[in-house]
Amino acid sequence: MGEFSGYRLFPYALLHDFCSAVFRARGFIFEECKQITDVLLAADLAGIESHGIQRLIRYDQEISGGLVNPEAKAEIVFQTPLSAVMDAHDKMGQLSGIEAMNLAIEKAKTHGVGIVTVRDSNHYGIAGFYTHMAAEKDLIGICMTNTQAIMVPTFSSQAMLGTNPIALAMPAEPCVFSFDASTTVVTRGKLEVYSKRGEPAPEGWLLDENGLETTDVPKVLSNIIAKRGGGILPLGGAGETTSGYKGYGFALLCELFTGVLSGGTTSNHIYETPGRSNIAHCFMAIDYALFGDKKEIRERFSHFLQELRNANKATGQERIYIHGEKEWESAKSKMTEGIPLNTKTYAEMHSIARKAGIDPLDYLPD
Amino acid sequence: MGEFSGYRLFPYALLHDFCSAVFRARGFIFEECKQITDVLLAADLAGIESHGIQRLIRYDQEISGGLVNPEAKAEIVFQTPLSAVMDAHDKMGQLSGIEAMNLAIEKAKTHGVGIVTVRDSNHYGIAGFYTHMAAEKDLIGICMTNTQAIMVPTFSSQAMLGTNPIALAMPAEPCVFSFDASTTVVTRGKLEVYSKRGEPAPEGWLLDENGLETTDVPKVLSNIIAKRGGGILPLGGAGETTSGYKGYGFALLCELFTGVLSGGTTSNHIYETPGRSNIAHCFMAIDYALFGDKKEIRERFSHFLQELRNANKATGQERIYIHGEKEWESAKSKMTEGIPLNTKTYAEMHSIARKAGIDPLDYLPD
Repeated sequence: MGEFSGYRLFPYALLHDFCSAVFRARGFIFEECKQITDVLLAADLAGIESHGIQRLIRYDQEISGGLVNPEAKAEIVFQTPLSAVMDAHDKMGQLSGIEAMNLAIEKAKTHGVGIVTVRDSNHYGIAGFYTHMAAEKDLIGICMTNTQAIMVPTFSSQAMLGTNPIALAMPAEPCVFSFDASTTVVTRGKLEVYSKRGEPAPEGWLLDENGLETTDVPKVLSNIIAKRGGGILPLGGAGETTSGYKGYGFALLCELFTGVLSGGTTSNHIYETPGRSNIAHCFMAIDYALFGDKKEIRERFSHFLQELRNANKATGQERIYIHGEKEWESAKSKMTEGIPLNTKTYAEMHSIARKAGIDPLDYLPD
Repeated sequence: MGEFSGYRLFPYALLHDFCSAVFRARGFIFEECKQITDVLLAADLAGIESHGIQRLIRYDQEISGGLVNPEAKAEIVFQTPLSAVMDAHDKMGQLSGIEAMNLAIEKAKTHGVGIVTVRDSNHYGIAGFYTHMAAEKDLIGICMTNTQAIMVPTFSSQAMLGTNPIALAMPAEPCVFSFDASTTVVTRGKLEVYSKRGEPAPEGWLLDENGLETTDVPKVLSNIIAKRGGGILPLGGAGETTSGYKGYGFALLCELFTGVLSGGTTSNHIYETPGRSNIAHCFMAIDYALFGDKKEIRERFSHFLQELRNANKATGQERIYIHGEKEWESAKSKMTEGIPLNTKTYAEMHSIARKAGIDPLDYLPD
């Protein structure tokens, strides 16, 4: 294999063909392979490496281990003109997500609002992919998912809620406003980065098994795996001084719309049933024509976002960002210049390919 | 007047009669006086003194100063089966709020979802009052409002967004789940408490006029008043380490649904037009029958909330709270034992009454 150290750039189309081939070999049909890969590479394009192709190994393991069933057909178990509940029957999260958001979009196009909750699904990648699907149809998109419990509620010592991200996209100029935030202070991915570097975490991120603040990342990670207690703090931190109960509350809103309103599983019981993830999602689309002239609304919103960009900068800062802007700029440049992959991910891709009976050199450069 | 030091308890009914009489004297009709007072005292009952009867003086000044027009009739300027946009024409915020939430509830009862945005309104008190209106009708209630700019976006030194609270209520046992949180770390009221005590603020609350962290409360308060820059940090704090851009993003979601989707004014322009507040709100009601059997959903949610209460406690802690629980317990006890008012508020009530041509002793004990 072509070895390199650090990062090397690969064209989007080449990586898309490679990932699609891997999923094809794992039993997905052509269109499904395209969809899963679209979501995966959207993360790399946006510069969110943690959710991109470096997760291919995890998805591959979930498929070969049986958590994800490539044969699964999602089933609508309850429906009204504005809403639906989908049982994903262990389908790949990206596929349940696209199917559910398309249904929400269809309902919003017809009635103004569409809300689809999904149960018994799997990890679906970046939430922003689905909210952008709605924004591309000139709708507001909202998306939530629960995840394995890792957030410790205020005054507790036990992880009971997931990172429970909440995402919203709204069309704007020059780019879609795209908010996508876990309701924990940080995600587990950031802990892994600190752990690899051997650095302590910043204050305000972590709790130990007694529910007391710590900066010891390896201890917290091993506590999480062994379910000894502790975990990541909600957005707002420990106790009440900096309002950690608000992050805890936003996580609860997410849990209501996902695990609860889907008739599914709450964060604290995800992965409890052997061989199943039981992750739940929620997808909403809102046609903002419900509130008047769309062009006028979009312009008013874009104008306000520009006022934010133009606001006075803090000493030492040169730019105020709007949510989604960094990712939009990143995607534009990576589409032309290529997607950076590190040595480890590249080696994993070779090994995944060979296990799937694919010659990596049919797709990847030597 | 009956003088006392510290706090003294007053029966709910007596305070309700008193406040209603004050609003009656200011030109509101009987039913309106009852509604405004219901919202005001709901805060005192919940133990949220900052938003309760101690704000009577502020409301009285806003009415006599012309920001609030007691004669105003709110107008529906745009409507669909699921939505409406209301121009409040400077109506008292509590009255616009109740009217708009009733309309959202009616739409949700008929179609499953109702969303009403409101522009050109005034302060409406606690958001939780309106979300509870929906919960009492067995619906999910969501409520947002923008407020005068006081939040400094990440990397800025200028207040551009309000405290922009987001509230959601969902029926549950034994009490309604009621989340109601400003998207700033804290509200201005907390700064005033620290200022009165002469104490520095905790780390992570405030920025000075250069956008640098400070704990100097009087300086920040005077900077805010003089619009010299600085203000309160978003939930998550300064910079990126503890994810302050998430609080900033949640404030932006609130701004989208209030100032933008109402065709109204964004936080950074509130109070800009002389004699007008131009505050904007959003009220949503969602019938969770959209997702199946309501009893089953309520039970699943209540069961999860009980699992949270039962989770292991952090060292030194005895109880894990669900959002709305403290307020529910407070209201139960204050309804029977009375509402505590401090000397200053009580003195203000006497002076407000006399200015309104009311003999305070007709209502308040000697």
